[in-house]
Amino acid sequence: MELLKGLNWRYAAKRMTGETVPQDKLDYILEAARLAPSSSGLQPYEIFVVSNQETLEKIRPIAWNQAQITECSHLLVFASWDGYSHEKITTVFNEMMDARELPHNTMDDYKQTLWGLYEPLGESWHQQHTAKQAYISFAMAIAAAAEQKVDATPIEGFEPEKLDEILGLREKGLKSAVILALGYRDADNDWNVNLKKYRKEKEEFIHEIK
Amino acid sequence: MELLKGLNWRYAAKRMTGETVPQDKLDYILEAARLAPSSSGLQPYEIFVVSNQETLEKIRPIAWNQAQITECSHLLVFASWDGYSHEKITTVFNEMMDARELPHNTMDDYKQTLWGLYEPLGESWHQQHTAKQAYISFAMAIAAAAEQKVDATPIEGFEPEKLDEILGLREKGLKSAVILALGYRDADNDWNVNLKKYRKEKEEFIHEIK
Repeated sequence: MELLKGLNWRYAAKRMTGETVPQDKLDYILEAARLAPSSSGLQPYEIFVVSNQETLEKIRPIAWNQAQITECSHLLVFASWDGYSHEKITTVFNEMMDARELPHNTMDDYKQTLWGLYEPLGESWHQQHTAKQAYISFAMAIAAAAEQKVDATPIEGFEPEKLDEILGLREKGLKSAVILALGYRDADNDWNVNLKKYRKEKEEFIHEIK
Repeated sequence: MELLKGLNWRYAAKRMTGETVPQDKLDYILEAARLAPSSSGLQPYEIFVVSNQETLEKIRPIAWNQAQITECSHLLVFASWDGYSHEKITTVFNEMMDARELPHNTMDDYKQTLWGLYEPLGESWHQQHTAKQAYISFAMAIAAAAEQKVDATPIEGFEPEKLDEILGLREKGLKSAVILALGYRDADNDWNVNLKKYRKEKEEFIHEIK
């Protein structure tokens, strides 16, 4: 029951205390993000773990001036590939075959089929698709943080191009997809902490086709 | 350590036994999906739980004929809103205020700001955004299934328009975003079960900005 307990405990903290998340808990959260599944196992994203205060202070104004950006312990930036390419896919598949002690050409047919599907879909589709994979990893980090009783505030309200610039993501072929502030709730000052968690009723949300 | 254990245990089962997932485990998985966070708490998606064999047999050919579609116990279809509207947002916020015993107009300013942002972004952006929220819920279901030792195979390889037609989603204002087959691995027949799990090394995946 750990996950459900964690999901019921968590909320999106709007104010944090600045207290540092211990390294073992941070490592746990990042490991969950790393183990997240992704389409064809490509993991088309990377994670930037920002704890440098100066950098956080640059990010806050381009994220609606949200207090938790500078009051968090670590800000996770999920940055997804700016597109698929035959070369990028080949690199991952080669590493995968190395890890599995298989010849590089083992998945060549699959790779050709995959690239045959992806190539014509174009850059905009690629970017949406890589971002969706990053969201799976992002959600695993949220689940892991809740299990560790670390507050985690999901943040979509930021200017992605400006964040890309601050972190130098463009030249790395990455785009910021979504961010997550990790830290500890400042319960005395957070208007959000006492609001009842609201979710849609099961009946209107889940439909059985038996 | 439950989540990490689960994520290390899980893999994408390509063959399943047909054994039924018990109701309490299914309920646990769906509850995790329901508790997933979403942007502004809108939960712009619904979940269809398909166990009807005839329906699964219709879905299999439009999903690359993947065996787990008909060998699973339940197929979860995450169907996201085909767009945001002032009316849909108002409905959710009213229910949220009712649940919190607050007047309906409590979040009017926020609602106007949000709709002012969303409206000009257009239908295609709306659809990508609602799908991303569905991916968070989808990931929570994967995490919950792993904790319950239920196999869960994430599937993006299907024809969404055809699935929408089979399930009658269009007339409900929904589009299928992603699907998840729940069941039990058929270890004797699954080529994927013994392949070593591959993930990128931490060093190339996680970058610290201290």
